[in-house]
Amino acid sequence: MKIKYNLLQKENNTNARLGTIETNYGTYETPMFMPVGTKATVKSLSNEELKECNSGIILSNTYHLWLRPGEDIIAKCGGLHKFMNWSGPILTDSGGFQVFSLAKNKEKDITEEGVHFKSHIDGSKLFLTPEKSIEIQNKLDSDIAMSFDECPPFPVSYDYMKKSVERTLRWAARGKKVHNNPNQALFGIVQGGEFTDLREYSCKETVKMDFDGYSIGGTSVGEDKPTMYKMVEDGVRYLPEDKVRYLMGVGDPIDIIEGVIRGIDIFDCVLPTRIARHGQAFTRYGKINFNNAKFKEDLTPVDEECDCYTCKNYTKAYIRHLITTGEMLGGRLLSIHNIRFLIKLTEELREAIKNNNILEYREKFIEKYERNNK
Amino acid sequence: MKIKYNLLQKENNTNARLGTIETNYGTYETPMFMPVGTKATVKSLSNEELKECNSGIILSNTYHLWLRPGEDIIAKCGGLHKFMNWSGPILTDSGGFQVFSLAKNKEKDITEEGVHFKSHIDGSKLFLTPEKSIEIQNKLDSDIAMSFDECPPFPVSYDYMKKSVERTLRWAARGKKVHNNPNQALFGIVQGGEFTDLREYSCKETVKMDFDGYSIGGTSVGEDKPTMYKMVEDGVRYLPEDKVRYLMGVGDPIDIIEGVIRGIDIFDCVLPTRIARHGQAFTRYGKINFNNAKFKEDLTPVDEECDCYTCKNYTKAYIRHLITTGEMLGGRLLSIHNIRFLIKLTEELREAIKNNNILEYREKFIEKYERNNK
Repeated sequence: MKIKYNLLQKENNTNARLGTIETNYGTYETPMFMPVGTKATVKSLSNEELKECNSGIILSNTYHLWLRPGEDIIAKCGGLHKFMNWSGPILTDSGGFQVFSLAKNKEKDITEEGVHFKSHIDGSKLFLTPEKSIEIQNKLDSDIAMSFDECPPFPVSYDYMKKSVERTLRWAARGKKVHNNPNQALFGIVQGGEFTDLREYSCKETVKMDFDGYSIGGTSVGEDKPTMYKMVEDGVRYLPEDKVRYLMGVGDPIDIIEGVIRGIDIFDCVLPTRIARHGQAFTRYGKINFNNAKFKEDLTPVDEECDCYTCKNYTKAYIRHLITTGEMLGGRLLSIHNIRFLIKLTEELREAIKNNNILEYREKFIEKYERNNK
Repeated sequence: MKIKYNLLQKENNTNARLGTIETNYGTYETPMFMPVGTKATVKSLSNEELKECNSGIILSNTYHLWLRPGEDIIAKCGGLHKFMNWSGPILTDSGGFQVFSLAKNKEKDITEEGVHFKSHIDGSKLFLTPEKSIEIQNKLDSDIAMSFDECPPFPVSYDYMKKSVERTLRWAARGKKVHNNPNQALFGIVQGGEFTDLREYSCKETVKMDFDGYSIGGTSVGEDKPTMYKMVEDGVRYLPEDKVRYLMGVGDPIDIIEGVIRGIDIFDCVLPTRIARHGQAFTRYGKINFNNAKFKEDLTPVDEECDCYTCKNYTKAYIRHLITTGEMLGGRLLSIHNIRFLIKLTEELREAIKNNNILEYREKFIEKYERNNK
């Protein structure tokens, strides 16, 4: 079966919503943060560690898996779940974002048919189309596939964005036509940049095609925060209530709160694992950096209020030692913590929705989170 | 209390011996392989993973911890066990081997007082003496400390080795004099290179000082296998039966078998984790390299006969994907496997001693292990 979204409750004072997603690999509550396993592995972590963080859906990357090891090898291994031995649901992106972000401008050519570009690994010529992206995702056998969209940088002209939105709609229709996996949901993607009317147009036209869920694309591409939050508001306004809403590539704690308040159900981002490898951790009092010498003899955990494996077992002094000596365990311990931090945040947001006090929750969270920055 | 060795049984046909080591952190059977956590972490692994591999004593490195984070910080954190949250026993080496191997010849000056050399991190001038090495190890609060010895390369002249052995004896006496930790055993180290009479002299004089255990040093420094095995035979010949015998830096499976047959109780080596990071794994049929394209679609585990986490959960195809894309989980999964492989080997060797059939075990193991190489 395909995934099914159930709306359980709407918060009284905002657009925040509590729901569940039923999948072939279990039912999960939303709002939810989804850890990113670009190349069929959430960097440095085991599946058991992800489960201990209370992870639900995880993400994987069509572009990277297409290049290595190739979708046919994964299909021969029984699909992505069996390949990486993950017993939970998986969402795959379309590869569109990677094509637009990894290939330099000169090295890509966007045509109506698809995108010509060069491999970021060996420079070989590649051609990705809406049909090809869906075909790869069908073979990967993820639970949720994404339509192949154009993801323009910020800012572009109104005219460029209008044409891009129209092309993304045509690409969405082409992808939907070839989609052929009865156990895989297919999502449409709302684009339109910071232009309210284009977001409305993109949203309404995408919904007409009746996808299994909807993503808000084109945020976190260089815009400021108020613009981003407006993009989200404009992006969800005309979405149906009975389908999942996914804000792509967003993982800053405050952005997650603002997204949930605006009606977003699921988020993904490489941020928690990426900053971990650079020695940074989320805490209730803002981000901290373990390269800072002040942690040399600090016997407290990363975050006193955290319940993760790292915080239960290790001190800041030890983690600083691992980070400054380049030991792999350091990035691993901070990845566990950072992922758990964002997942716990969404657990608390669900509780706040139940209690109809999400605005109060936001105020308290932000006051504390930004205390160290003042 | 200090560790205590109990000899349980001698094998009928060889010098192999079964025993236990009682420590403040539990009692462990020997022969035993000890994983190496150079900088207070066995590279990429958690303590729980080490326990799952059935690890007993683990090793850590005086030289590296002296430089970073420094023994005083570790002491402030409550000693090495608390610092790294390891609930088992720890052996620290003296730093001697690192001083002799990491510093280039021109950059070190061996005097009677100690060794002047340059830091491998920032080139700063350092001076390590027998007293300093013991003082650091006392502060680290490991369960077993090593005497500071000179570890000459292979080959050196008889005259050089004779003088070196004599200096190592004087250094051992100086270290023993300042050793001051009632919960820490101190081992003496037998040197003497490939010279039988110098090994005898080193052994007898070291034993006269009455250490808590004895190490065989100066192997795996470039000599061929028959020479190495002779060094071991010459090194243990005059050691007392009621003390542990430790062959330093040896982790090749066949060398472990040959060492056990010659009366060695404990081994350590970075080999299992180092080759793992380069994509190599021990198997019953010899070492395999995951960069080899033949594993692309191989759905079997690393080693069909292995009971480790990696072999129970992942295929060769997935591990090859992780290794060839540079994903950290690859090195981690192979590190778990390789450590478990060596620990399981020592478990089987203990069983062979109990059954008095260790020569038969060796023959079968080697026949299979070298099959792929023929």
